[in-house]
Amino acid sequence: MNVYYDSQSISKENFKYATLLIIEDNNDHWQLIQLALSRSLPEVKATRVATPNQAIEYLKSCFLQGIDLPKLILLDLYLPTREDGWELLQQLKHSTSSYKHVPVVILSYSNDQEDIADSYFYGSTSYITKPTNVNDWESYIQKLRIYWWETVTLPNDRLVI
Amino acid sequence: MNVYYDSQSISKENFKYATLLIIEDNNDHWQLIQLALSRSLPEVKATRVATPNQAIEYLKSCFLQGIDLPKLILLDLYLPTREDGWELLQQLKHSTSSYKHVPVVILSYSNDQEDIADSYFYGSTSYITKPTNVNDWESYIQKLRIYWWETVTLPNDRLVI
Repeated sequence: MNVYYDSQSISKENFKYATLLIIEDNNDHWQLIQLALSRSLPEVKATRVATPNQAIEYLKSCFLQGIDLPKLILLDLYLPTREDGWELLQQLKHSTSSYKHVPVVILSYSNDQEDIADSYFYGSTSYITKPTNVNDWESYIQKLRIYWWETVTLPNDRLVI
Repeated sequence: MNVYYDSQSISKENFKYATLLIIEDNNDHWQLIQLALSRSLPEVKATRVATPNQAIEYLKSCFLQGIDLPKLILLDLYLPTREDGWELLQQLKHSTSSYKHVPVVILSYSNDQEDIADSYFYGSTSYITKPTNVNDWESYIQKLRIYWWETVTLPNDRLVI
């Protein structure tokens, strides 16, 4: 308690044991995201899976193998349908989920108001409209870095689980 | 669908009918936040309430009077106890809540790991450790602006409710 704001210490703590899980079924998009991550967030180990089942298996394996849970999850909504993305989101955010506290950012080309509102309703932390080129991706990842790693305080599973 | 990334159009849409609800029981903190908001987010109308009951009454009155729901909620965790903050957070994020889709950012001086993890678990979108002076507050509000208003796509209640 009463440890005052110090962005350097917040940042240092967030980067400790930091991994990022990306659930993306499109290989071309993953190439763009991977390149942008290597430029704008090189300190964070990124793991990519392509399906909801692989995502759940990966998260379960973190517990079984003692690997750190991701600090943040980026979830493509259309996997390949939005119902697939929402089902996974609801599974992650279910009250009995061991991953409920991990923030999930939805990524999608869609700017359909139902997609946006329902993603927030089902528990996504925010909704980001996918850019189409690597420079815009780099700018997005830079903004994710500034907000999630350098401003916000992320949970530290090494201390709470 | 398939409307590509254009940060200017995202920003323009997020700023439309944009209000921000701040639930803060400490008058000194509210003064700092208010000053920082006037400098870094002057386009967004900020409403401050001091108690959980006032917050629920305000949100209900939005529906009754046809006022736009806030695009984002900033919630002081200790109101005055953390149990008060969590109870309100769970009420806002309950499956039957009409405000469930509105992102809630927790503000607190505490960097207690239980406070942080439980805030995420109960559905806060992120957790921010309160700064102590107006310049740091201004920098924080600037980062909230860049992330929530200029990067993320926020729900537009005028179209979905």
